[in-house]
Amino acid sequence: MDQKNCDTIIADYERIFHPQKLAIVGVSEEGTGFGSGMFNALQAMGFEGEIFPVNPKGGEFSGTDIYRQIEDIPVRLDFAIICVTAKAVPDVLEACRKNGAAGAEILSAGFSELGTAEGIELEKKIRQIAAKGIRVVGPNCFGIYCPRSRLTLLPGPDLSRRSGPVAFLSQSGGMAIDFAHKGKWMGIGFSKVVSFGNGADLRETELLRYLARDPETRIITMYIEGIKDGDSFFREIKAASYSKPVIVCKGGLSPAGQRMVVSHTASMGGSRVIWQSVLTQVNAIQVQDLEELVEASLAFSLLPEKVFKAISVVGGGGALGVTACDAAEAFGIEIPPLSADLQTRIGELLPKPGSSALNPIDVANPFVSPKVLKEILRNTAQDDRIDLQIIISLLYHYKTIARALGKPVAEVAPYRELAETIRDVMKETGKPIVVVLANPKRGVDDLDIIEMLALARREFLDRGLPVFDELHEAIRAIGHVNSYYGRRKAENE
Amino acid sequence: MDQKNCDTIIADYERIFHPQKLAIVGVSEEGTGFGSGMFNALQAMGFEGEIFPVNPKGGEFSGTDIYRQIEDIPVRLDFAIICVTAKAVPDVLEACRKNGAAGAEILSAGFSELGTAEGIELEKKIRQIAAKGIRVVGPNCFGIYCPRSRLTLLPGPDLSRRSGPVAFLSQSGGMAIDFAHKGKWMGIGFSKVVSFGNGADLRETELLRYLARDPETRIITMYIEGIKDGDSFFREIKAASYSKPVIVCKGGLSPAGQRMVVSHTASMGGSRVIWQSVLTQVNAIQVQDLEELVEASLAFSLLPEKVFKAISVVGGGGALGVTACDAAEAFGIEIPPLSADLQTRIGELLPKPGSSALNPIDVANPFVSPKVLKEILRNTAQDDRIDLQIIISLLYHYKTIARALGKPVAEVAPYRELAETIRDVMKETGKPIVVVLANPKRGVDDLDIIEMLALARREFLDRGLPVFDELHEAIRAIGHVNSYYGRRKAENE
Repeated sequence: MDQKNCDTIIADYERIFHPQKLAIVGVSEEGTGFGSGMFNALQAMGFEGEIFPVNPKGGEFSGTDIYRQIEDIPVRLDFAIICVTAKAVPDVLEACRKNGAAGAEILSAGFSELGTAEGIELEKKIRQIAAKGIRVVGPNCFGIYCPRSRLTLLPGPDLSRRSGPVAFLSQSGGMAIDFAHKGKWMGIGFSKVVSFGNGADLRETELLRYLARDPETRIITMYIEGIKDGDSFFREIKAASYSKPVIVCKGGLSPAGQRMVVSHTASMGGSRVIWQSVLTQVNAIQVQDLEELVEASLAFSLLPEKVFKAISVVGGGGALGVTACDAAEAFGIEIPPLSADLQTRIGELLPKPGSSALNPIDVANPFVSPKVLKEILRNTAQDDRIDLQIIISLLYHYKTIARALGKPVAEVAPYRELAETIRDVMKETGKPIVVVLANPKRGVDDLDIIEMLALARREFLDRGLPVFDELHEAIRAIGHVNSYYGRRKAENE
Repeated sequence: MDQKNCDTIIADYERIFHPQKLAIVGVSEEGTGFGSGMFNALQAMGFEGEIFPVNPKGGEFSGTDIYRQIEDIPVRLDFAIICVTAKAVPDVLEACRKNGAAGAEILSAGFSELGTAEGIELEKKIRQIAAKGIRVVGPNCFGIYCPRSRLTLLPGPDLSRRSGPVAFLSQSGGMAIDFAHKGKWMGIGFSKVVSFGNGADLRETELLRYLARDPETRIITMYIEGIKDGDSFFREIKAASYSKPVIVCKGGLSPAGQRMVVSHTASMGGSRVIWQSVLTQVNAIQVQDLEELVEASLAFSLLPEKVFKAISVVGGGGALGVTACDAAEAFGIEIPPLSADLQTRIGELLPKPGSSALNPIDVANPFVSPKVLKEILRNTAQDDRIDLQIIISLLYHYKTIARALGKPVAEVAPYRELAETIRDVMKETGKPIVVVLANPKRGVDDLDIIEMLALARREFLDRGLPVFDELHEAIRAIGHVNSYYGRRKAENE
């Protein structure tokens, strides 16, 4: 495509993701249905553009006049959210196109996913209208979430308002909303989330091409089932992955899962082995499920762009040394024993007995103060081989002390001090630190621990420290960062 | 061993796990140290036997006179908990033996794990005393947890008082206490948990032989690093697994992890591949980490002893159909599409649009009532191929309704009704039902959801329904049940 075309396309995407004039078609005065829900959700999110609700019956909703049809709206729209019955969609979409809207998301279901002749025909009409000059997300999707413009997914009035570097593309609306919710407390900031459903117009390949060029997006993630054109899809991943990581969760890799991928388009089949091999060739990061996707996104969001060959682990808990080494080895990471000199210095800081200064450094006692932990981390960082440190925090143990003092555990556990301490060491040493917030106690008697740890997680994240629930999850996520930058470096050499 | 010997051994174990007369050596009047902690923990747990605290300084602790030495105790002890410095241990142990105690647990560290000549010599002395006629757990361990007698692990005053079918053997004390805590809210009842540390006397093989015969234990689980005698160990697993499942988490399977296994005894090395192959031969269930161990234990605890070839999945959430089929296929389980007749009947119960009655059954709307879910589950069970049902509960969505009503979500979400409903269907149909309690929201704003789900989990567990956090975890656990009973059946044929 030539430069002019390219500029127009980028400008169109800008109008789609950050609309100033937005129509919602299917807002009823009674407030029922998806359209009204979206209106409310956008207001709750603090959407600052102008919203034009539309319904043939007219009336008023939430203090705003409802237009009877798109044709009555006196301005050029940037974007439209369409939530009317499937049959009514083509006419509405055509009206949006004539208005000059850059794009529309169609939340309505009832198209090719039904497998009926009528549904397939309706979707074909959408594709034809799109081809005449309006970009379409959907149908049968949850739409776009963009924290900067406050566009939100169906039904999300409670998604984070904070932008970040992670974009997510998903055929499945459920995956999109689940990732958006998990990301909120796990510390993932999103640039754009697009649930594209049936993908009648915009889908994986074209959106990927856009995200590769999008300065707001530093990490591209996706959940895909079927793809439309394997060759161009993998070409786009390869092109994108020269400049930013592309994390892929592929659903339907089992024969049974494959059969479930109701594939209205010419979808690429292929076994697990083929997918894995092709994704590796294009330097995509492969994850098995949403949890691994969120964890990998967190690591790519907060860690420097490099390979972490060797790490230290400081903490405690069940079989720390063996568990850490098993996990690290599985992902090609070393946990080198520290020099005798460092072991002596760290050993002097550790409580006796039961501690170990070898690496993993087992502090043995969960009440070792942030001050002492700081000294341990500072010393460990002096080993030139160590690229990154993991600290396993056993803050949940403070409930014992809180109980003895008759105070809430959130008051007693020194999580803020710990977060500050770790951030200080990270700055001073220039080596990233990853936090594991262990908690074996999650029953009704221990909700206070859960609350304290949720607060602690926020303090860590606010200081740029990634937090994981389990050590092996942290190590797996670091392993993904290593694979990606290792391969990218090899390609560039 | 002959019958008489065998009876004596069983009687000794009875005195060890359910002691009536118990000494704690190392209880100080000031209340510091492990001994005093154990005294308090046993009282908190409601230990009903008689406790004899011991300390050379004498005095009084918590209203009980402290004996200056074991020799002064006027009764025959069943068991002793020893928490004195390593050097003092042999004399104390010998005094316990002379008293006639059946066994002792040595919580003290400072033995062969140090790798020093002195530590190795001290442990040798312990072994020699044990050989003269007292069974020893430890040293360098967290001891025994037995809910029926209320013996508890270091430092566990807050472990469950409820007995159950699961026994756990662990070299690592940290793993033992973590499993005990996780088990408490995950619904695992324990018969006996033994953290045996350095295993100077009692360790994996002999304890396994005992547990295989223990009527209180229906499921044997273990975390092991090094083993002392591979041949007899695997022979005992094979013998035990004819009558009960043996679940093994082997730490140190990586070369680095293996190096961490500080192996004071002749420990069996061997790669991952060798271990996996041998464990499969003896029909042990292999798990990778503590989470998988807890989940497998839960499935074996609550599911009938059989193979579940085909299952149904009822629920919703991101990409349900594809995700469920991918997970099921990975563990050799089928999710067969229901007959057209059943699909029609179930389809009539489901909200439109977006639902699917195929299997997985996607209810599309999270607010489908327990009554309707009951009818769906009853219909699904009519398919003769279905051996087990999984229901994915999306109770967390009720926060939206709770907010609209201005009520707490724990009041609004119908979790008790749902638990009763599911239990009723299970009874009526004779097919087990497994619950997945999904929750993508775990931030500081959603602690009320976490609380509601913790309450819900308890209601499900109280009715014998296993609960998992994620669908793939539930399916993996069912897969373990299938592998075990499948192989056992094949062996018996």
